[in-house]
Amino acid sequence: MARLNSFYLAGRDWKEPYSLAGPEARHMLGVLRTAVGDQVRLFDGQGREGLFRLVSAAKNRALLEPVEISLAQRPEGRLYLACGWSRSGRRDLVLEKAVELEAAGIAFWQAERSQGKVPASPKPSWQEKCLQAAKQCRNPWLPELVAIPGGTAGLIAFARRFEQCYLMWESDKALDKASPEALCAGNVLAVVGPEGGFSDQEAQRLLDAGFRAASLGRGVLRWETAAILCLGLGYWARQKAGNISRSPG
Amino acid sequence: MARLNSFYLAGRDWKEPYSLAGPEARHMLGVLRTAVGDQVRLFDGQGREGLFRLVSAAKNRALLEPVEISLAQRPEGRLYLACGWSRSGRRDLVLEKAVELEAAGIAFWQAERSQGKVPASPKPSWQEKCLQAAKQCRNPWLPELVAIPGGTAGLIAFARRFEQCYLMWESDKALDKASPEALCAGNVLAVVGPEGGFSDQEAQRLLDAGFRAASLGRGVLRWETAAILCLGLGYWARQKAGNISRSPG
Repeated sequence: MARLNSFYLAGRDWKEPYSLAGPEARHMLGVLRTAVGDQVRLFDGQGREGLFRLVSAAKNRALLEPVEISLAQRPEGRLYLACGWSRSGRRDLVLEKAVELEAAGIAFWQAERSQGKVPASPKPSWQEKCLQAAKQCRNPWLPELVAIPGGTAGLIAFARRFEQCYLMWESDKALDKASPEALCAGNVLAVVGPEGGFSDQEAQRLLDAGFRAASLGRGVLRWETAAILCLGLGYWARQKAGNISRSPG
Repeated sequence: MARLNSFYLAGRDWKEPYSLAGPEARHMLGVLRTAVGDQVRLFDGQGREGLFRLVSAAKNRALLEPVEISLAQRPEGRLYLACGWSRSGRRDLVLEKAVELEAAGIAFWQAERSQGKVPASPKPSWQEKCLQAAKQCRNPWLPELVAIPGGTAGLIAFARRFEQCYLMWESDKALDKASPEALCAGNVLAVVGPEGGFSDQEAQRLLDAGFRAASLGRGVLRWETAAILCLGLGYWARQKAGNISRSPG
């Protein structure tokens, strides 16, 4: 399916008759001028993707018939990255790389040194950015998007669903280096600070709650670099372990 | 020296009387309004950095006296990344991350699928981008910048100075995964393709010349993501090995 255009169809809509509406249909029909009979790729962001043929096209509605549908197995190593909220213009870059580097989830949390306020819930623009990236890199999995307005208390509550939680801390106290292998061992949460880093109190609260301190090294990394490095180490370790999330071919 | 402004002073100018001219002096005096008596940080991009005091300021010339000068030891693991030339708007991002992630060098090579032409020599804007990044992240080492217009032949000639050369290849033939440790074992060159990847002939020519095929995994990574992941794996391995390039403190 290397050269096919990709479109997102939410999981609840994967049933006969397959149809695409809204912006995705407008993009398919109006912008890309897909013709009846053409083949396209649909994906649901939950590991399901399929080859479809366009059967009929109305102004804002495409009717499609499935040629082949596949469902990728959920990867065993699942990495969530929680980034301290920052006004950084690089937030979209982090979202894009989270999709490419196959993060299972990405959260933004309200830190003491955050500039501005984390929204109460994930913004539609985050999802849109992830969708664009997923179309380009053909990752059939979209990361779960999470907003954590509640500071370290919110983070600690969120952490309950994970087997291992790491605090990626630029401090001499973070003696363990982050291990790529650790970042793909089961359900893992890795937390990076906002621009300006964790406060000592925040770090202590997370350590007290059972987070393990890890370090990406002594260098002074920008916010998005720490995030992307963390995602990249996890990605590489999953690739090495063979926990490939892509369907064959 | 955490809060000091940083300025670049080329290695040949590190001698009494220390003075800064040109854009760096204008930035120091005109933009940042550094006053006589203030302290600043100078670095030469070759591991030397120092704390200086401003002694006198003319319109475009700053006279400085050294308070303390240190010279960082050259790291043992040295990674050069050669990226296939691309029109990507993300080239500046790759240069910035090369500085943050402490690459020893970054080259752009002319590949068959490159869009546009690699310039005959590194552009001043590349160096400028690296300088900006080095000031921000306080890496006292600037990566060497290299332009390789001569295709794989140019790359193979360039490769002679390295102990190990890797072809980061998204192919089933690249059975070895890229190992972070391999990327910091001595003088290492890692080559990534342009947007669109290596042609089979290019890959074969590099393999015939002794490059080893390595893979970053089966995912479809964008040009800059492959580059940054490669840089990040090398960075992490050097941090782990303790080949820290920063001076203490």
